[in-house]
Amino acid sequence: MLKDVVRTKTYQNAIYQNAFIFKNKVVLDVGAGTGILSLFCAKAGAKHVYAVECSLMADMAKEIVQTNGLSNVITVLKGKIEDIELPIDRVDVIISEWMGYFLLFENMLNTVLYARDKWLIDDGIILPDKASLYLTAIEDAEYKEDKIEFWNSVYGFDMSCIKKQAMAEPLVDVVDQNQIVTNCLLLKTMDISKMTAGDMSFTVPFKLMAERNDFIHALVAYFDVAFTRCHKLMGFSTGPRSKATHWKQTVLYLEDVLTICEGEVLSGSMSVEPNKKNPRDIEIMLRYSLNGKRCQISRTQYYKMR
Amino acid sequence: MLKDVVRTKTYQNAIYQNAFIFKNKVVLDVGAGTGILSLFCAKAGAKHVYAVECSLMADMAKEIVQTNGLSNVITVLKGKIEDIELPIDRVDVIISEWMGYFLLFENMLNTVLYARDKWLIDDGIILPDKASLYLTAIEDAEYKEDKIEFWNSVYGFDMSCIKKQAMAEPLVDVVDQNQIVTNCLLLKTMDISKMTAGDMSFTVPFKLMAERNDFIHALVAYFDVAFTRCHKLMGFSTGPRSKATHWKQTVLYLEDVLTICEGEVLSGSMSVEPNKKNPRDIEIMLRYSLNGKRCQISRTQYYKMR
Repeated sequence: MLKDVVRTKTYQNAIYQNAFIFKNKVVLDVGAGTGILSLFCAKAGAKHVYAVECSLMADMAKEIVQTNGLSNVITVLKGKIEDIELPIDRVDVIISEWMGYFLLFENMLNTVLYARDKWLIDDGIILPDKASLYLTAIEDAEYKEDKIEFWNSVYGFDMSCIKKQAMAEPLVDVVDQNQIVTNCLLLKTMDISKMTAGDMSFTVPFKLMAERNDFIHALVAYFDVAFTRCHKLMGFSTGPRSKATHWKQTVLYLEDVLTICEGEVLSGSMSVEPNKKNPRDIEIMLRYSLNGKRCQISRTQYYKMR
Repeated sequence: MLKDVVRTKTYQNAIYQNAFIFKNKVVLDVGAGTGILSLFCAKAGAKHVYAVECSLMADMAKEIVQTNGLSNVITVLKGKIEDIELPIDRVDVIISEWMGYFLLFENMLNTVLYARDKWLIDDGIILPDKASLYLTAIEDAEYKEDKIEFWNSVYGFDMSCIKKQAMAEPLVDVVDQNQIVTNCLLLKTMDISKMTAGDMSFTVPFKLMAERNDFIHALVAYFDVAFTRCHKLMGFSTGPRSKATHWKQTVLYLEDVLTICEGEVLSGSMSVEPNKKNPRDIEIMLRYSLNGKRCQISRTQYYKMR
């Protein structure tokens, strides 16, 4: 993940170029991994950084902190945020790289909100503090054939029951921007400094207008994150028109191929909620309808990311 | 995995072109997955096929068998080979696609041997019945820099402790045949019809002779499998000179860069054994030495696939 330059460089720039946020402040790094963000904060002048990591990587992070002569500034704590104790009552800044595929899949946002409510001072800073989900529609005949229709005849056998399952699993992959048929729509913005865990479940309407005559095989979701408390706005997008990241985009295949004409509108709503049994899984309900010259369709589809 | 054409087509050809093996015979498919091999065997004229699959995929396999009108020939049994009961005492043929990365990683060979000893008639047929492991040496400066040396300075920080860990993890990737510096050596052949589980642990010596002046950054292991009981020999290789499969090749990076001259020999031994706690993990010990004009080195390295 360190090799995702878009991601790591954005954090590095947000931290190094905004040393005023960190200078002599106490920082909490939620889900520290190798400790890279804590190292950045230490270099930017933090008084102390608590790097919390629950995996075995915590042991590596400890060794890395020591190797780089920062043991007096960074304390690595191995454990879950919900279980660990900090030797202090309050932190000034929370930094975290918590985002998952489709923003919310297998994400640590819950943990960040928990840490915020327990330790962050009033008017403390969270980086990043804004995350937004976007939606667009694409032409994808070739890939849909390969990924979905493939199951209709597999070496001569009908495996279409697997097709149903494949349709219900959002596909994480890089989408070519030339496949985009409609506008790209902001669906939902989350304010990490104010939101509650309940805000991770939502239903939002959408209207996507075709920018050319084309076919629509899938909707595509992606997100951006922003650091709005920096000297100037910083952030990055994981959209198909931006440099690819390890998050790629999330493709939701439609049961039908929609024949859409320039100017026609695909309208509907998307509902997102964490699975009740396993909140790291995400359930998506998509309602959509097109009442066009060449295609009239109305449908509801369900997806699970697991 | 069905999309690995080399793999699936080889099984399909071995079965369809050798109907004499299956005609009116009872077949056991070990680790059936979607049931594709069972479907092939049914089409080839098997009297009955027992398709054993322990994952949820067994439910799909049942539906696929029904959809394709083969419920009277194929019985899907959901469970572990070690737990299930067959309604018969003996099978004539065992078919399985059990191979893992590096042949033995996360493999089902143990399960195939268990099924063989419990159910296969004397002189019954196992497909495939031979599997061989090969070794060669490659120049890989660029990739080693990217994968291993990267950790020496990560955004300005020393993370070399992760480098040690990265070195000890064999890398599964496609190797360009132009990177090959030495001959390709057959290390070990396993006869699936006769071997015991103990034969999965072994130590074999090797001598690799340089075919040109070059540098060696890694040893590369790969395997082939053969169906020797077919009318003519069939099989496939996962080597760097063959069409790529999902098994790719397995790259073992060396701590040193070896400067080797044409005709010089890198000699040593490779020891392979399943991890005692978790037998699906594989431990590899590599001893090697080069006593060349420009480089004299002798070293032992340990690798873990997990």
